[in-house]
Amino acid sequence: MKRIVILRLGHRPVRDKRITTHVGLTARAFGAEGMLLASDDRKLAENILDVAKRWGGNFYVKNDVNWKTEIRKWKEGGGKVCHLSMYGVNLPDVAADIGQCEDLMIVVGAEKVPFEIYEMADWNVAVGNQPHSEVAAVAVTLDRIASIDPLKNEFNGGELKIIPAERGKKVIDNRQEGPGSS
Amino acid sequence: MKRIVILRLGHRPVRDKRITTHVGLTARAFGAEGMLLASDDRKLAENILDVAKRWGGNFYVKNDVNWKTEIRKWKEGGGKVCHLSMYGVNLPDVAADIGQCEDLMIVVGAEKVPFEIYEMADWNVAVGNQPHSEVAAVAVTLDRIASIDPLKNEFNGGELKIIPAERGKKVIDNRQEGPGSS
Repeated sequence: MKRIVILRLGHRPVRDKRITTHVGLTARAFGAEGMLLASDDRKLAENILDVAKRWGGNFYVKNDVNWKTEIRKWKEGGGKVCHLSMYGVNLPDVAADIGQCEDLMIVVGAEKVPFEIYEMADWNVAVGNQPHSEVAAVAVTLDRIASIDPLKNEFNGGELKIIPAERGKKVIDNRQEGPGSS
Repeated sequence: MKRIVILRLGHRPVRDKRITTHVGLTARAFGAEGMLLASDDRKLAENILDVAKRWGGNFYVKNDVNWKTEIRKWKEGGGKVCHLSMYGVNLPDVAADIGQCEDLMIVVGAEKVPFEIYEMADWNVAVGNQPHSEVAAVAVTLDRIASIDPLKNEFNGGELKIIPAERGKKVIDNRQEGPGSS
């Protein structure tokens, strides 16, 4: 089973709160095991973990990491690093290569990133060479490099589970079941 | 050629500024022709149009539309409507059907949407039945229903163009060419 972790750089607690939350939830939904946050924003980390707890699975967020240390450790452990940036080689040209990597760190910045990242990355990858969104970039990269459809991922142990429906909302709430629930 | 338009509902000018901008830029990058904004936020519309002008193509933003009128007009014109929501049927199960539609409106809300949307939509579609992001949902839907790889879209007439590179940034700035430039 492939291991994928997201490293989020340059997050500014107020300004980037919602975008980084979307990056984290998207990473989880598309099969990453966790997110390393290279900024101190404990509240944001807790919010994502709260969603993960309610909806299942083992997604983690590590707050306030040192990005250089994390990239070095990952590479020393044999992992590879893919940096998403609108300037890189286009995803369709490298998705098959990246998909073969067993331990993948995906680095995604807000605004500008240190130039060193371009040097440390095994791949600098653009999801199309047009401006759009780091959330979209993470989603489409994880979708295209997957060997099993990430939209069919099951998340075990969650309190809530959706039953797909053509109209309306069907949600199973496991908290209401069993003795002792209140 | 397929026509795709995004209808953005429930946008709150301050709170959703960045997410809606990312929705718009993602829609453009993945081949939508324009975005209808069912809120009044002229500044946001201008910001997206400014990016579109610099980077090419004909993407448009229509500010402050009435969502019900737009959906009705679209359907009267023979178009179909796909509403993205985490409660719908899962994208892998309907992507082939949706991909055959020639005139497609994709409706994407912030937070809650009026229940009528579920009734008016031809498809209520979840991009996985897990919480993540409307930006990711738009990206992966447009990516999966496309018949030609949207990441290879060319955007003509832009002032800026990126040359994909393994390291660093290569940008052609057309504004610096020709007589009379300063």
